[in-house]
Amino acid sequence: MTDQSATTGVTDRPSDGNVAGTAARSAERVQDFLDRAVPGTPCLVMDLTAVRERYAQLRAALPDARICYAVKANPMPEVVAALAELGSSFDVASPGEIDLCLAHGAEPGSISYGNTIKKRADIARAHEQGVRLFATDSDADLTAIAEAAPGARVFCRVLVDNKGSRTPFGRKFGCPPETAVHLLVRAAELGLDPYGVSFHIGSQQHDATAWEHGLRAANEVFRGAAEHGVRPRMVNLGGGLPAHYTDSAPPLQDYARRIEQALDREFGDERPELLVEPGRRLVGDAGVLRSEVVLATPETGSDRRWIYLDVGRYNGLAETEGEAITYRLRTSRDGDPTGPVVLAGPTCDGDDVIYQHTRYELPLTLGAGDTVDLLSAGAYTASYASVGFNGFPPLPTYCIDGHERS
Amino acid sequence: MTDQSATTGVTDRPSDGNVAGTAARSAERVQDFLDRAVPGTPCLVMDLTAVRERYAQLRAALPDARICYAVKANPMPEVVAALAELGSSFDVASPGEIDLCLAHGAEPGSISYGNTIKKRADIARAHEQGVRLFATDSDADLTAIAEAAPGARVFCRVLVDNKGSRTPFGRKFGCPPETAVHLLVRAAELGLDPYGVSFHIGSQQHDATAWEHGLRAANEVFRGAAEHGVRPRMVNLGGGLPAHYTDSAPPLQDYARRIEQALDREFGDERPELLVEPGRRLVGDAGVLRSEVVLATPETGSDRRWIYLDVGRYNGLAETEGEAITYRLRTSRDGDPTGPVVLAGPTCDGDDVIYQHTRYELPLTLGAGDTVDLLSAGAYTASYASVGFNGFPPLPTYCIDGHERS
Repeated sequence: MTDQSATTGVTDRPSDGNVAGTAARSAERVQDFLDRAVPGTPCLVMDLTAVRERYAQLRAALPDARICYAVKANPMPEVVAALAELGSSFDVASPGEIDLCLAHGAEPGSISYGNTIKKRADIARAHEQGVRLFATDSDADLTAIAEAAPGARVFCRVLVDNKGSRTPFGRKFGCPPETAVHLLVRAAELGLDPYGVSFHIGSQQHDATAWEHGLRAANEVFRGAAEHGVRPRMVNLGGGLPAHYTDSAPPLQDYARRIEQALDREFGDERPELLVEPGRRLVGDAGVLRSEVVLATPETGSDRRWIYLDVGRYNGLAETEGEAITYRLRTSRDGDPTGPVVLAGPTCDGDDVIYQHTRYELPLTLGAGDTVDLLSAGAYTASYASVGFNGFPPLPTYCIDGHERS
Repeated sequence: MTDQSATTGVTDRPSDGNVAGTAARSAERVQDFLDRAVPGTPCLVMDLTAVRERYAQLRAALPDARICYAVKANPMPEVVAALAELGSSFDVASPGEIDLCLAHGAEPGSISYGNTIKKRADIARAHEQGVRLFATDSDADLTAIAEAAPGARVFCRVLVDNKGSRTPFGRKFGCPPETAVHLLVRAAELGLDPYGVSFHIGSQQHDATAWEHGLRAANEVFRGAAEHGVRPRMVNLGGGLPAHYTDSAPPLQDYARRIEQALDREFGDERPELLVEPGRRLVGDAGVLRSEVVLATPETGSDRRWIYLDVGRYNGLAETEGEAITYRLRTSRDGDPTGPVVLAGPTCDGDDVIYQHTRYELPLTLGAGDTVDLLSAGAYTASYASVGFNGFPPLPTYCIDGHERS
């Protein structure tokens, strides 16, 4: 646990009262699995029931938005299958993710090829597989779509401010609204369906008002395109909805209300179709990463201890780069007196330090062989793991769903 | 190519005259393979002959040092086997690397367990496999070694300045000299062999004088231990010897001369046994990473273009984090007029940008389908790749050795 976080990690934020009960029950299921199966460490345990509950919560909060699960957040086949059964659509980044979705229950029509960086051969392959919806943000990509996926629907990604995000995108994706107008008009000329506009306000977004900028930009593109006789009809709200790390984000209802207000203000009665691309939101809180303490040593000249875990930046905790994502922790020594720690991973790499600037306190009794659980670790962990850096294997994932699967 | 680098990438630094010819022949062999096999991209091509040549060069430069290849730099079985055949020893970080070495020709006695972060069970397993040499830097780890590997040789890692390194270690590893004295004395008390001292001046070290600090610290530990009747007899020079990226490092002979001078100054006639742990030095220049341009687009409001490759930070180029390692580039459009670029990877991740602050220029004609080769990419690339982030597979490696193996 940290000085910023809940002590048990099994309750959700008090302000999100409606999910506190489900979070507590999920924690019990995971704990029960860990107690019974005693899996080797490190490992990730995903509670599929919690994934379904998060989907239902989002469904209720944004009732008319088509939910496209961002597969990259956790591409476990069981997760994809569970969401496909609920009728989810899917936001994919690559041919590999398309194959995964199609193999686990997704219909081709439910797939949105959301990566603006695509090889022409990959566009053609997706089109042959029945994918009909593509993101774009450049002339070169649009031309490739027109040639390799004739007649497809396209949406154009506009660049918006990522302030408030723990993992902002920089300038890699998206174009200014005037370019988006040009691209949608050109899409129509090329025989494509100029379907709409997308934006992404940055992952793990803590500012519920952040979507306002994106919706304003989307409206600007809609109006600009209309001046050329092109009428986009969809707005893709992207991702950014948070999971529960040490720093509290507002409850989901606040995000939904702010988005609703901005939609009213920008579009009034001409409400567009909506898409949303949750990744972290659906799977983050559904996962617990169990690790073991390898070594605990005092730091020379300070009162801190270095706690080395058997998981680090290269076998599951990639999002601790720059200490961007600060997981809540639970240890097998909780309740004992605590002191400040540096947390580090097991490799011989000097960058494999998890937290040295963020203040964490852990029990003074914690030593080799004790367990440290990283909570809400279901997103962007196992799929980031290296194939075997320093000879450490990738992070195994166990999905629990009444019965266990590995 | 960049404005800082050689234009062809096939010649070595002029100051390293003795290796220029071998580097040119290696480039020819790799090019021949790429022309004939036309492998899918991205992929890494390793020239085993070049690995052997680098080993021989280092053998000549530091004739009495035991060479322990740092397996983490490139754990391809073919690389390990080629070095084992030459009589190399191995520096390993994990049980996985021990198994790899033993399976590909290494003797247990040639293995140094160089990670100071070890589970007791892993120490015991290594000891059962015949490993007898262990790094340490803490009381807790030393105690575990004494219990799980009784009688083993240990060397203590001291913390030294990493100035001049492109990838410094921070404070994760090593202890002050006075702690090292304590640990070696205690090792003797625990029935271990207090064999020596190690240090690491940081990977890709550009300052040939950097080893002086480490050798001074090693001498301090030797003298301190002697006061307690304990006589360490080995100095492990660690890694840090450079590969050839855009910024030139001094030739190998300069490093060897500086190390020799410092050894004379610190130890005089009582010259210790020497170990050296080259990783990057042996395999970096032996690899070429071939990638393909996915998309080339102008950047709004600048004269730069964004060149998106099918390789990025998550499928091979992890060391471009912070733009620490700047690879030399070669493209299928070399010779055409050039302009400034940002280089980025293929995933939907905003951090998957390769170079945006380092100035690179590439041909203005470069577009989708053209190839970009990253030279001297044999170290810390394929083994860092994620298992499948964004659905992109890990980086395949081809080893060429007269005949090809994949």
